[in-house]
Amino acid sequence: MILHTQSWTDTNKLLFKQAYAHIVARIERGELKAHDKLPSIRMLAQELQIHRLTVFRAYQLLKEHEKVYVKEKSGYYVHPGFMESDLPEQTDRSPVPSSGFLSNALSEIQQIPVIYQFSQSLIDPNLLPNLFLSEYVKKVFDIYPKLMGTYSTAQGDEELRAFLCSYMKQHHRIELTESDLLITTGGQQAIDLICRVYVRSMDHILVERPTYSAALDIFRQQGARFISVDIHPDGYDLANIEMLMKQYRPRIFYMNPTFHNPTGFTVPAAQRKQLVELAERYRCLLIEDDAIHEMYFDQPPPEPIFSYDTDGWVVYLRSFSKYVAPGLRICAVMGRPSVIKPLTTAKSLADNGTPLVNQKIFLHYFDSERIRTHLDKLRIALQIRKEIVEQELAGTGWTWISPKGGFNLWLKLPESIPMEEFLNESIRQSISFVPGLICDPLREMRSWIRLSYSFVNEDQLREGVRRLVALSRKY
Amino acid sequence: MILHTQSWTDTNKLLFKQAYAHIVARIERGELKAHDKLPSIRMLAQELQIHRLTVFRAYQLLKEHEKVYVKEKSGYYVHPGFMESDLPEQTDRSPVPSSGFLSNALSEIQQIPVIYQFSQSLIDPNLLPNLFLSEYVKKVFDIYPKLMGTYSTAQGDEELRAFLCSYMKQHHRIELTESDLLITTGGQQAIDLICRVYVRSMDHILVERPTYSAALDIFRQQGARFISVDIHPDGYDLANIEMLMKQYRPRIFYMNPTFHNPTGFTVPAAQRKQLVELAERYRCLLIEDDAIHEMYFDQPPPEPIFSYDTDGWVVYLRSFSKYVAPGLRICAVMGRPSVIKPLTTAKSLADNGTPLVNQKIFLHYFDSERIRTHLDKLRIALQIRKEIVEQELAGTGWTWISPKGGFNLWLKLPESIPMEEFLNESIRQSISFVPGLICDPLREMRSWIRLSYSFVNEDQLREGVRRLVALSRKY
Repeated sequence: MILHTQSWTDTNKLLFKQAYAHIVARIERGELKAHDKLPSIRMLAQELQIHRLTVFRAYQLLKEHEKVYVKEKSGYYVHPGFMESDLPEQTDRSPVPSSGFLSNALSEIQQIPVIYQFSQSLIDPNLLPNLFLSEYVKKVFDIYPKLMGTYSTAQGDEELRAFLCSYMKQHHRIELTESDLLITTGGQQAIDLICRVYVRSMDHILVERPTYSAALDIFRQQGARFISVDIHPDGYDLANIEMLMKQYRPRIFYMNPTFHNPTGFTVPAAQRKQLVELAERYRCLLIEDDAIHEMYFDQPPPEPIFSYDTDGWVVYLRSFSKYVAPGLRICAVMGRPSVIKPLTTAKSLADNGTPLVNQKIFLHYFDSERIRTHLDKLRIALQIRKEIVEQELAGTGWTWISPKGGFNLWLKLPESIPMEEFLNESIRQSISFVPGLICDPLREMRSWIRLSYSFVNEDQLREGVRRLVALSRKY
Repeated sequence: MILHTQSWTDTNKLLFKQAYAHIVARIERGELKAHDKLPSIRMLAQELQIHRLTVFRAYQLLKEHEKVYVKEKSGYYVHPGFMESDLPEQTDRSPVPSSGFLSNALSEIQQIPVIYQFSQSLIDPNLLPNLFLSEYVKKVFDIYPKLMGTYSTAQGDEELRAFLCSYMKQHHRIELTESDLLITTGGQQAIDLICRVYVRSMDHILVERPTYSAALDIFRQQGARFISVDIHPDGYDLANIEMLMKQYRPRIFYMNPTFHNPTGFTVPAAQRKQLVELAERYRCLLIEDDAIHEMYFDQPPPEPIFSYDTDGWVVYLRSFSKYVAPGLRICAVMGRPSVIKPLTTAKSLADNGTPLVNQKIFLHYFDSERIRTHLDKLRIALQIRKEIVEQELAGTGWTWISPKGGFNLWLKLPESIPMEEFLNESIRQSISFVPGLICDPLREMRSWIRLSYSFVNEDQLREGVRRLVALSRKY
């Protein structure tokens, strides 16, 4: 999925191999028997969300290996000799994943080591009060000397959940009880658990266009089909959303309405209430991912959509640790017990609960006075960094809408720039960014990039952006 | 799945509701169209692994709600009026999980607060060197002052992986490189990731009988079908395993060959090499779960099956933190890069990597001299606790095979004891244990229980077992 040439090739090879293995597995497990017709190329391509030519190539190889045969003008059929030999031959004798189509394009890009790291939508570790935090950790171990020997419950530490209830009441006037919360290891796990509980293969789900690419990869792994909703500086086209909900009956709408990733847009308060009404009417669960709520520049964002929910159709993901102590990976999922309960079971199966030590450290740190000062400082530092990039980009012809908070600029580059080549060349020059294509459920936004200004310091930011712009001028 | 009466009822209600929702979802997503025939009751019951009467009840309600109609002697068909109204009526207006059948019976039992906690196969926190550990943590933060602000890679901290490579070489003469390891948040997550990558709905998988019940619940969630292999004090019947591999072509064999949970049995060295040969021949991935390798009483267990693997057909799960600092939740998955790579992608989608702070604390602690002394002490303490239980059980008529390591006794009680009633009454008297039924893939072992002697202190252990025995005498 990644634009990097090497990976493109790897991915295509993998997809082809997986399509082949998919059919072999279905025959082996008896779903397809001798002389049964294989799914049409078009259908399998749609089901697996891959190119028809990839399926065609897999079917051709199955034919060569005499696992299937062809009837003229009819299709492919299971060869009766398939199960005769003790074991069917395989092109590759190593174990083949039988799951959906595994890929995490964002993670692939982020793990390439570069100096000018603009693909990480993360806080620069130097902006965190590290010394203070370390001291805090030591105190936590004095309070809970047996912390290392104790498991958390699957739902999360009760003390932490109680604290977050009072936090939500104080800051958002949202009344919750401890049973309305589930603690997860970061927001990514929350999305994954929701996907596992509420999405099945071939389900239609609503997603924003563009959106967080790792979420797309999670849903894709589960076999979901995307219906996309454009996000604009002033929110969504609600009439369009209603039409799509009516037509496709999506089970969930995964949304990121506050300092949206990657665009930075914020859905206005006026639309928030209406979205809840639509969700209720069409029984579509709104998954409100609120990862950087407090990272505003001038004024706080509107209240969460969750605050308008009366009937239990919003699940609220709040990543608290991201701008405080991201290494702890603490996220809270909030919703009705009817939603939280199956998610807790899924969590208990997934990893039996987030480590207690991380929860306790977070709790005591987040509850401290110092944290407010830290956040104030952080907002200023991020705004300065954003402005540095904007200064450097002035006069390039690249266009963007200046975000009112968050970590990213969503940039439209001239269409003349060949994006794949540009990204590869940037990486060779130790600069990385996120290609817009992977944020687009339709995979068409070739001229856009997400540039994160949160992770590197001011000097590196300035230097890196200069180099990136200079590189783009070659095209 | 739990025997507790209240939960039985809840579970059945949930299953019925999910079967109903399953059919509605299939119609909504267009898999079943007007006048299409529904799967037969027998087929759906098999697919969803629920009782046929539960499916029957769901179909009856679908009929009442005019979502389906019946043709005499033929079956159930989708009602053409299903999609006519804007939205089909539902019995329950809250969001219904659309995933597989979520349940984690073990977790349900363990989370009931009791004094005599014999259901936790965990080390008593008082047996851990807690003070020493706390001091260690403080040192770790001095070494890595920015630890709280840093993410791990999805595959796990490189320093930790390098250390574990040298550990495996030193202790087991197994040569690995860092790319052969993936760090997960506990062994449970490792099983879950393997299941997601290597198991699809309706796949046959081999499991021991009895086995770790949470693993069964993980595989069940994915829709796997179980083929079971009895485990005996002297290992498996290999001829039987070969026959099953030949007949069913299972993709994986989930096994726990060293101080097996729940029985405590250890598969002898002689069988280990043969198992690898079978795995290669039938292309069945062996999932070797080795959670308590060092918890032996008199002599160390045989080398891991993984040490015989030459062709990449064994995946080795080693839970290192379990008897050192269980709260850290550190497990390593080892195998060929062809296996580790897709698992790492799955891990990156699941939670983007185990928190770095947990990995670094574990690394520095596990690498210390103190840990060897701790393990020696622990082995003695556990053996003493095991012997206490065995003394208390002498003369009860309960039977067991004394384990040579581990945390559990696997006890056969007289068949006259009504297990459901006995467990419920025990819990009321603040004693919990694991009913054998949930460890049995065939759900038949009604007279067995797993009693963990690792979690409570000697006095409580003695008192609790006495109370349990006294209670059993009522029947």
